[in-house]
Amino acid sequence: MTSKFLSALDSAMEQKGSMLCVGLDPATPEMRRDACVPQEYLSHPEGEAEGLLQFCKGIIGQTSQYACAFKTNLQYILPFSLGQMQELNGEVHKAGVQNILDVKLSDIGATNRASIHWAAKAGFDAITASPFAGNVEETAKYGRELGVGIIVLTLTSNPEAHFFMRDAQIGGLRGYEWIAGKVAQSGADGCVVGATGTTREEWMEIRKTIGEERVILVPGMGAQGGDGKAAVELGGKIIVNSSRETIYSPEPGKEAKRIRDTLNGLKKK
Amino acid sequence: MTSKFLSALDSAMEQKGSMLCVGLDPATPEMRRDACVPQEYLSHPEGEAEGLLQFCKGIIGQTSQYACAFKTNLQYILPFSLGQMQELNGEVHKAGVQNILDVKLSDIGATNRASIHWAAKAGFDAITASPFAGNVEETAKYGRELGVGIIVLTLTSNPEAHFFMRDAQIGGLRGYEWIAGKVAQSGADGCVVGATGTTREEWMEIRKTIGEERVILVPGMGAQGGDGKAAVELGGKIIVNSSRETIYSPEPGKEAKRIRDTLNGLKKK
Repeated sequence: MTSKFLSALDSAMEQKGSMLCVGLDPATPEMRRDACVPQEYLSHPEGEAEGLLQFCKGIIGQTSQYACAFKTNLQYILPFSLGQMQELNGEVHKAGVQNILDVKLSDIGATNRASIHWAAKAGFDAITASPFAGNVEETAKYGRELGVGIIVLTLTSNPEAHFFMRDAQIGGLRGYEWIAGKVAQSGADGCVVGATGTTREEWMEIRKTIGEERVILVPGMGAQGGDGKAAVELGGKIIVNSSRETIYSPEPGKEAKRIRDTLNGLKKK
Repeated sequence: MTSKFLSALDSAMEQKGSMLCVGLDPATPEMRRDACVPQEYLSHPEGEAEGLLQFCKGIIGQTSQYACAFKTNLQYILPFSLGQMQELNGEVHKAGVQNILDVKLSDIGATNRASIHWAAKAGFDAITASPFAGNVEETAKYGRELGVGIIVLTLTSNPEAHFFMRDAQIGGLRGYEWIAGKVAQSGADGCVVGATGTTREEWMEIRKTIGEERVILVPGMGAQGGDGKAAVELGGKIIVNSSRETIYSPEPGKEAKRIRDTLNGLKKK
């Protein structure tokens, strides 16, 4: 289980001594008033999208020495042109870090191929994909062909995630068990598993199913209440995402360093 | 059950005498060699994205008199800037038609709000949403607030859709039954139900659950092998999507008219 993405991620994790992934979610006040991009960026003379890009570049500059990856949510950068996405990724790669496009791809066939093609062209190293339509193997196959990592939503920690990911029974398996099995059978690069509410048994089961080489991306730290402790203590290839508590902090670099060190402390115990 | 989107869709369906939705999936040869955008557009002097936009505008011009809606898949227009999306939607609205952004939104909270905000700003009238993370009610609420219709993936017809949408058992309900129930309890505007493999009983059950006022969007006609017959014969507010067999036809207008008339013929029987 090696891939272009997993190899590059390994190097970045080692080089930065970090399992921190910084979530680039450039929110405007219409989305969230309490934690959003400062007005000086929103009123950028070349337009709001350009302002959001400059904000992200600033965050990358301040945090990339403490992070192995960024996770950019497509829904926040919908107004970006291809050129703006390429500029964003140029900045990330200059810093020796990987960028995951959080698109939660839920399409099939040629449409998945379209998405992965544009993600590659924009310079993203991996994408997130949803297993809702099935097609995990097909998506993973396209990812391999186009050199883009595929990380599959497996057990997220939002309050209603349990319906399909935990309660649902598919052929005698719980949702997340079925998904982890599909990931293991395919060329996919890993799973998204939330920091909150996932039990130690569930963590162990998912890791055992997908093996040691695949990555587990853990969102939901900080603002969403999770602590990622159980995940990190378990070991294996894990990256932990922090978004708003880092990027809207008065000192994003200091905050990124603090979280990196906290995570490394957990690992050594 | 009225909403800005459903009212506007009603008007367009009546005015055009059509339940045809044309899928704008501008594929490049890297995605699909047999049915893709002609080379003359791909080598547009202002870049590939501009070429894809001009291709879409041409299709809108040729087909909009026979269609009540377009469905634009986000994965195909990932390189578009906000300005290019606005130009696309300007062309659609000039023709008195609605445009649905097929994003299969799978996020939660502020991220869903971000997506719906940008969709509205780009001029889209509705979006598709996935129920995989739960949150159907929350997504529908944001859609209402921001004036964007929400159409929820319920029972699609790709080969592996059955795992979560038909096989999965959630609280004694099959996946699609659970989803239709969530749509009915929320302010969502309708369901996506595939043309192929859905039985007459399933069509009737979904319609009964969500009521007569909500729309059912039926993809999968033509190239994907479905005929939409059962859906249209059942009646109620239905729009039927045709993508590649229309937009890559030598005469897209003629093909759109043919499909519109075929659908109307089924309805009258």
